[in-house]
Amino acid sequence: MKTHFLAATPVAAAMAGINPAHAGEPAGAPGARIDAAPKQEIRLERLTPEYWRVTLDNPPFNIFGPETIPQLNSVITQIETDPKVKVVVFQSAVPGFFLTHYDFVPPLSATTGIPPGATGLPALPDMLVRLSRAPVVSIVSIRGRATGVGSELSLASDMRFASREKALLSQFEIGAGLVPGGGPMARLPRLIGRGRALEVLLSGEDIPGDLAERYGYVNRALPDAELDHFVDALARRIAQFDKQSIAEIKRLVDIASLPPDSEIGAEWDAFLASVQRPAAQQNIKRLMEMGLQTKPDVELRLPYYTGTLGQ
Amino acid sequence: MKTHFLAATPVAAAMAGINPAHAGEPAGAPGARIDAAPKQEIRLERLTPEYWRVTLDNPPFNIFGPETIPQLNSVITQIETDPKVKVVVFQSAVPGFFLTHYDFVPPLSATTGIPPGATGLPALPDMLVRLSRAPVVSIVSIRGRATGVGSELSLASDMRFASREKALLSQFEIGAGLVPGGGPMARLPRLIGRGRALEVLLSGEDIPGDLAERYGYVNRALPDAELDHFVDALARRIAQFDKQSIAEIKRLVDIASLPPDSEIGAEWDAFLASVQRPAAQQNIKRLMEMGLQTKPDVELRLPYYTGTLGQ
Amino acid sequence: MKTHFLAATPVAAAMAGINPAHAGEPAGAPGARIDAAPKQEIRLERLTPEYWRVTLDNPPFNIFGPETIPQLNSVITQIETDPKVKVVVFQSAVPGFFLTHYDFVPPLSATTGIPPGATGLPALPDMLVRLSRAPVVSIVSIRGRATGVGSELSLASDMRFASREKALLSQFEIGAGLVPGGGPMARLPRLIGRGRALEVLLSGEDIPGDLAERYGYVNRALPDAELDHFVDALARRIAQFDKQSIAEIKRLVDIASLPPDSEIGAEWDAFLASVQRPAAQQNIKRLMEMGLQTKPDVELRLPYYTGTLGQ
Repeated sequence: MKTHFLAATPVAAAMAGINPAHAGEPAGAPGARIDAAPKQEIRLERLTPEYWRVTLDNPPFNIFGPETIPQLNSVITQIETDPKVKVVVFQSAVPGFFLTHYDFVPPLSATTGIPPGATGLPALPDMLVRLSRAPVVSIVSIRGRATGVGSELSLASDMRFASREKALLSQFEIGAGLVPGGGPMARLPRLIGRGRALEVLLSGEDIPGDLAERYGYVNRALPDAELDHFVDALARRIAQFDKQSIAEIKRLVDIASLPPDSEIGAEWDAFLASVQRPAAQQNIKRLMEMGLQTKPDVELRLPYYTGTLGQ
Repeated sequence: MKTHFLAATPVAAAMAGINPAHAGEPAGAPGARIDAAPKQEIRLERLTPEYWRVTLDNPPFNIFGPETIPQLNSVITQIETDPKVKVVVFQSAVPGFFLTHYDFVPPLSATTGIPPGATGLPALPDMLVRLSRAPVVSIVSIRGRATGVGSELSLASDMRFASREKALLSQFEIGAGLVPGGGPMARLPRLIGRGRALEVLLSGEDIPGDLAERYGYVNRALPDAELDHFVDALARRIAQFDKQSIAEIKRLVDIASLPPDSEIGAEWDAFLASVQRPAAQQNIKRLMEMGLQTKPDVELRLPYYTGTLGQ
Repeated sequence: MKTHFLAATPVAAAMAGINPAHAGEPAGAPGARIDAAPKQEIRLERLTPEYWRVTLDNPPFNIFGPETIPQLNSVITQIETDPKVKVVVFQSAVPGFFLTHYDFVPPLSATTGIPPGATGLPALPDMLVRLSRAPVVSIVSIRGRATGVGSELSLASDMRFASREKALLSQFEIGAGLVPGGGPMARLPRLIGRGRALEVLLSGEDIPGDLAERYGYVNRALPDAELDHFVDALARRIAQFDKQSIAEIKRLVDIASLPPDSEIGAEWDAFLASVQRPAAQQNIKRLMEMGLQTKPDVELRLPYYTGTLGQ
């Protein structure tokens, strides 16, 4: 019997139709549409040879699914290997969403079937670990919701700047009975301290820009009107500096601050175990029925909806 | 010759009379009154099977003594082993005091005579270490003074919220020539960074709610009128979530953030050594003469009084 | 062939004349004037036997050079070995500068020729590591620019307080194509988290007092008019406390928070390698031509000038 992120339901089946194909899924499997090339959800622009911009553009909600993994992997491989690039800014083109939770429609096998990456970790945590270690400066510019994978990509990046008015960070997973899988248990306590990390991870609540700055979840929250200019000026400044010295500074900071890969790997295992538990399957099913992945209000106010599941 | 927290003095003897009995003390030992059952200083309420409240209620100052250890140990054992509880809130019923320093009246043997706990550590650090590792979310709601053991219990808990107007956190010990014994040298630098940890530990000064938030000593300081509602709403939210996923998230955060038990054990040893040094005995005697454990002003403005000892 | 911090240029030669002699430099070596005793750049005052003050006084910019190393080493050795001192405050007598970058005029051999210190590390990182481990409380009072060595001395000290209006902290090195060498890649991520540490280290930007407090780079930023009184009162308070307990608290905090010496040593090696690369030599030469070490505006607005090098 195949395991699904969500056991097939009328709602899930309806959802499946609006999702792209998954490599390796047999034709006709629930949630698969192998006849179409995957939509390009991530754009890479080389503003200069030294300064690149990555735009997350998967409307309406910037949901991250198994089909996004090879796209992000391609970007990160280019960041790792390009001889000239020094700084990369990640931003979103989707109003209200930087990047949000994992796609619950495709079957679990669409994710677990992707081969492990160069670090030996499964594909998603592998990419994030490689981004952290790349000899290139990664900066996220967060406007809208950065939840689940969106928070995990932010935490794996080198610096985080947020819109004071429009950013929301969270690890919503506990609200659905899940354990997050992309590194936040390893990264958040090292970044913001055990107490605030446990609050973020165990409340599943939204952390707006101002509070995210006070907690250290982001470097700074800036007025929305100033965010783009600030990040662009910082990136252009760094892009003038010496690539070798940038790489050596990062390498030495990595020694002092990166979690061991074993901690990241353990999270992915815990995530996979949690998503297959009946309680989580039931929670996801109920969230889908409420409108997860279809109704804007559910995606925009996710912690409110997860807070209703136990009532 | 028996070692005492405070060598017997007229003041100490007078103090002894207002303190409860200590298990294992021979009848008639200084500071012991074995004819009375220990007063219940800690109340455990099961608001729901999933959400418990622990109230610290040892007026007038919420001083923590050897007789408190088995009471807190019982609560923590129940938290560790109950199949349903998910979240526990610690609060105080004593105006002005969340929980303060260790009781200096009983003889030292009343503390050192308590057998080590399940971790192999002495009883007090053992309990705190077990609370940190329990598969249950612990939240302290700090109103009034959280000093010494009060700060150490807070630091061993998962999250800390403080009254903006009424909370004071401190490790006052250095002011009396003591080394703290319940974990703050291991926990504070990991939580708030080396520099602020050294300031807290080496100044012995009070850290009010606002500054405690800026330092990361607490998750947040909230207006006093909002504190209870905020903590209650957070606890009720968490109480709806999946117990197994809560436990797994905590376990993974523990790996990234908890100090090894050996560091905690070394602190207890340093505390015991310090309290037996003549300089500390003299400081404690003088603080008792000023009104420590008897006069509200001394307990309320403890750093002022420790600041006068060297003059 | 001798390696220089800066290959001889007319500007560098002009600079050399205003710099003191370097022990071990052969007579007539570029930048050496062995006929004069080194100017005393650091003053040590014993305000009381327990409370010392160290004043950095090398106008006009408080530049730190190889000739400063034995002077600071002497101070730190006295701090380490004096039987009475409990607390030392570092401050500056030079308006606008707490302590800034390393002197680029003397030849590199003036620095590399100084024998390693007691820890086995090269002289500069050795001193800073020993200050962190000394059984004495070190407090920096930052008014003006604390850049390069000035930031590294601050980070190696136990507590940092800054003027809200007049303090600027930075690691400017990346702006000149250098890797910092005195510990900030090891210390900053542990103090302020990976993200903010990478921003400080890879932007080379100034961090003013307020932001330094929000980032945790300093314990607190205080109004300039209150800084001296605050630091003095804190130091006098600590100076009354028990020296042995101070030392034991520090020792236990050290276990929880100090980087291993190997990380500090690796930084020095990376710094030495970076300063000898042609790109860095060219950057330093151009900064010197702009007025580094001669024109106040270049020293005061250093990040502006490093930002122009790549244009």
